[in-house]
Amino acid sequence: FSLELRPLGIAFLCLALQQDAWLQSVPLCLAGFVVQGSTGEAPYLTQQERLEVMSYVRQAVPKDKLLLAGSGCESTQGTIEMTERMAEAGADAALVVTPCYFRGGMTSTALIHHYTQVAEASPIPVVLYSVPANTSLELPTEAAIVLAQHPNIVGLKDSGGDVTRLGLLVHKTQNEDFQVLAGSAGFLLAAYTVGAVGGICALANVLGAPLCQMERLWRAGRWDEARELQHRLIEPNMVTRRFGISGLKQAMEWFGYSGGPCRAPLLPLTEAQVSELRQDFTSNGWL
Amino acid sequence: FSLELRPLGIAFLCLALQQDAWLQSVPLCLAGFVVQGSTGEAPYLTQQERLEVMSYVRQAVPKDKLLLAGSGCESTQGTIEMTERMAEAGADAALVVTPCYFRGGMTSTALIHHYTQVAEASPIPVVLYSVPANTSLELPTEAAIVLAQHPNIVGLKDSGGDVTRLGLLVHKTQNEDFQVLAGSAGFLLAAYTVGAVGGICALANVLGAPLCQMERLWRAGRWDEARELQHRLIEPNMVTRRFGISGLKQAMEWFGYSGGPCRAPLLPLTEAQVSELRQDFTSNGWL
Amino acid sequence: FSLELRPLGIAFLCLALQQDAWLQSVPLCLAGFVVQGSTGEAPYLTQQERLEVMSYVRQAVPKDKLLLAGSGCESTQGTIEMTERMAEAGADAALVVTPCYFRGGMTSTALIHHYTQVAEASPIPVVLYSVPANTSLELPTEAAIVLAQHPNIVGLKDSGGDVTRLGLLVHKTQNEDFQVLAGSAGFLLAAYTVGAVGGICALANVLGAPLCQMERLWRAGRWDEARELQHRLIEPNMVTRRFGISGLKQAMEWFGYSGGPCRAPLLPLTEAQVSELRQDFTSNGWL
Amino acid sequence: FSLELRPLGIAFLCLALQQDAWLQSVPLCLAGFVVQGSTGEAPYLTQQERLEVMSYVRQAVPKDKLLLAGSGCESTQGTIEMTERMAEAGADAALVVTPCYFRGGMTSTALIHHYTQVAEASPIPVVLYSVPANTSLELPTEAAIVLAQHPNIVGLKDSGGDVTRLGLLVHKTQNEDFQVLAGSAGFLLAAYTVGAVGGICALANVLGAPLCQMERLWRAGRWDEARELQHRLIEPNMVTRRFGISGLKQAMEWFGYSGGPCRAPLLPLTEAQVSELRQDFTSNGWL
Repeated sequence: FSLELRPLGIAFLCLALQQDAWLQSVPLCLAGFVVQGSTGEAPYLTQQERLEVMSYVRQAVPKDKLLLAGSGCESTQGTIEMTERMAEAGADAALVVTPCYFRGGMTSTALIHHYTQVAEASPIPVVLYSVPANTSLELPTEAAIVLAQHPNIVGLKDSGGDVTRLGLLVHKTQNEDFQVLAGSAGFLLAAYTVGAVGGICALANVLGAPLCQMERLWRAGRWDEARELQHRLIEPNMVTRRFGISGLKQAMEWFGYSGGPCRAPLLPLTEAQVSELRQDFTSNGWL
Repeated sequence: FSLELRPLGIAFLCLALQQDAWLQSVPLCLAGFVVQGSTGEAPYLTQQERLEVMSYVRQAVPKDKLLLAGSGCESTQGTIEMTERMAEAGADAALVVTPCYFRGGMTSTALIHHYTQVAEASPIPVVLYSVPANTSLELPTEAAIVLAQHPNIVGLKDSGGDVTRLGLLVHKTQNEDFQVLAGSAGFLLAAYTVGAVGGICALANVLGAPLCQMERLWRAGRWDEARELQHRLIEPNMVTRRFGISGLKQAMEWFGYSGGPCRAPLLPLTEAQVSELRQDFTSNGWL
Repeated sequence: FSLELRPLGIAFLCLALQQDAWLQSVPLCLAGFVVQGSTGEAPYLTQQERLEVMSYVRQAVPKDKLLLAGSGCESTQGTIEMTERMAEAGADAALVVTPCYFRGGMTSTALIHHYTQVAEASPIPVVLYSVPANTSLELPTEAAIVLAQHPNIVGLKDSGGDVTRLGLLVHKTQNEDFQVLAGSAGFLLAAYTVGAVGGICALANVLGAPLCQMERLWRAGRWDEARELQHRLIEPNMVTRRFGISGLKQAMEWFGYSGGPCRAPLLPLTEAQVSELRQDFTSNGWL
Repeated sequence: FSLELRPLGIAFLCLALQQDAWLQSVPLCLAGFVVQGSTGEAPYLTQQERLEVMSYVRQAVPKDKLLLAGSGCESTQGTIEMTERMAEAGADAALVVTPCYFRGGMTSTALIHHYTQVAEASPIPVVLYSVPANTSLELPTEAAIVLAQHPNIVGLKDSGGDVTRLGLLVHKTQNEDFQVLAGSAGFLLAAYTVGAVGGICALANVLGAPLCQMERLWRAGRWDEARELQHRLIEPNMVTRRFGISGLKQAMEWFGYSGGPCRAPLLPLTEAQVSELRQDFTSNGWL
């Protein structure tokens, strides 16, 4: 079994919710989608609901699009079971976030052990997922380098924004079949520069086409245009940093998508926050 | 309905696992137990398993002992459902940890909204639970003060160790029916000093009797003895800070309890760690 | 040479500025004063100015009052020289803050080396000073325990607020001639409970008499009164946490002292901040 | 008066110490030098020593090389005076680190006020300097954007490593005469990608020529070679993150420079650390 993220090198979409309207307007420039990642509010759904979303999306999106399933749970056993079920439901690969609740015990050794067990058991390739803004835990660089050697671990989505670390990870895994993906649109161009092959960016839910365009400009050597586009995407991308899922759902409305209502305890934006958020899009020429 | 934690003023036990052997040697000086709190590895169990543990313990422990159920989930809806089921399974009160995954959205406003909804729906009293070592999130002081006014919110377990904050919380809620509990044995005596009524301490799984003894000394005005006892409990209590659940389970073995095996991704202690941990108990005269 | 802080067990005053008016109204319940500690804005003065303040205060305050001089600099050599000069200017002991700029290099080993060199060279006793709110560095507990064995290191002012750590420090240094002092009024009573002998509290610049009164109540076994007083002092004490030196100077005005103008880059409080600060004093019955 | 850093777009050297041997082997590819920045151990020297180093270097280096002087102090007044003296001693521009000791008071407003006063008073252009690894404080993005409008503030050295922030700063100051410089070699290539004009990198003390080479490759559009070079520079650059000044001085020895002895409290590397550090250079082909 072989999953080639590398030739694609594009931004995956983090699918928040199954929405017919949304699926009909999917930017087909994207190479694939993530179901039940952070943006998909996985921690808010029951196991059954997570699988239902997966099944729905699998049948609804074009067959040539990659489908990654967020399948991380706090326990190793839970993660293995969820990964197996997501594979049955049609996922091409599993995106496995670091467990984090007992963070005092989440040493490099423990995380290597965890991911190795998951990768051994998983019928589909595993993509590591480090997102310190949510987990307050960064998958240690040395752990990622060790895990990259596992044949069923094919990449890392890194949302931490430390491009020095991204470069080092690319450098130290250059002899492995291992792909580094930027986890946020704010540093996507810089990540390409140091060797990332693509990105999985929440902003692709809203501005998927410009993200694909930035990649094309970069590959064509049109650096000034790529940089200018990157610059215009940073403030809109802060939507998730400042306003999280709530902000993303609001922005989706403006662009004709339907993010659905916020689930508690997340609150919808206040009017002042909506204005502030909209300003980030208008001042950069997106609205 | 009224739950009086105040006159008890004792250390609750964080019950890790249902274990006949353990239950037969429960230190009956304790006023009650917590089922499926952090030490109970709640994030590692399925909903069904969590409820089964609760039912088992309810029938096994003496009827006059309080039973608190950890019922916090990431979503408000999930927390409400788990709380209701724990009540059905016999819990006297719910211990509800802060949601934390989308921590950027966990503002005071969002947390007040969350806990209010849970308290409204819950058939049993709610105890707030702030444990930044696990969640990287502290329930804001101002949120706790607002929530203390709710008739179905009866207290707070605070594991953060900031005794200034504990004192302020006692001070600002003195007119409410609200009880502050120390969340760790390391600062239990200091917490009593500033007005806490008791503690819910992982160390009570191992050294429950000395913790009860310290409270008796304190209430009897025998300060020097209470202080000396507190001093001897600090290093053993570091078990959970340094070695977490794995350390606690190891220590339980030494004292005749059975903590059961570690669940992955938590790893059992290495030999060097076991030695270090044992030293914390022997040097303080506990082994 | 012997400096006995222990029998005093009181709150030292952090003297911000030499002010005749201030000195004439010094609360004589205090056992001593600190010159050029954090509150004294030491980092804002030249070496010469620091020494001038010291000389002035030495001649102005009663001879039976202890005078501690903040003499910490970033380099070991600079600290040694400043300590020697402060001794010449009449300081009874040196209060030496942790160096912190190259914090990556400030390991336990480096700090033990630093303080040992300073203590060896100093003609007066050395008091360690850990204040993470300013330095983003905590003097490691194990370093403090090692340093406590040095005959010329007589104590530690700890402003971190972790009373578990304070208790452990008292416990592990019980056989040394070493005194632990609370570095802030917010946790002073709790610190006494676990064995601290006194405090060096910025709030003593404003509410020195109540701090002394709290100590007397505590020593007399009048716990409820001591606790009530502690409760009323927490919010006023937040002055320094929230508003820093600027807030302290404002509060001093209200109590008839003269803190002098703020030095840039510190800014005087805005009107809204003044109102908020005043509320912390009035709601607790101090104004 | 006009200082054009922009056309240079190169790595400045952080000069640690005046050393004849060092100066004779200066990599002349570098456009300039920094005297008394962080690497120059400014916090360890007296004001007089800082000025002496500056005077020495000014006369020793080629006249066409830019000379930046670290002139930041904790107080605004101290910074102004040091900046004026550095200008008299021949500095072309001042590199002014954020004050940080009273970090609670170092709000955006306070820092804008501070830098504006310094820029008004300074006879030479001012370069802002944000280095959270040392100061635990990041110059807020919004403060930097405001300050960029000041005619005597010509740039920012940012050592934080957040390339999203660098991109945003370039974007929001595109209409100002303001230059963004990478503060570390680890993310230099990524910084160029998002619009930085150069770098001030401690690693240039050791590997100045490869850093200049990387810039030439980048400007020539030879991206793959530039990336490969960047990759090989990341681990050597960790020298300062992991081993600080001590590591840098050790590495300088290997390359024929003389960094001089470590000043206490910084300690020289242990043998194990020297081995580890050397491995970072050998495994990347530099030794």
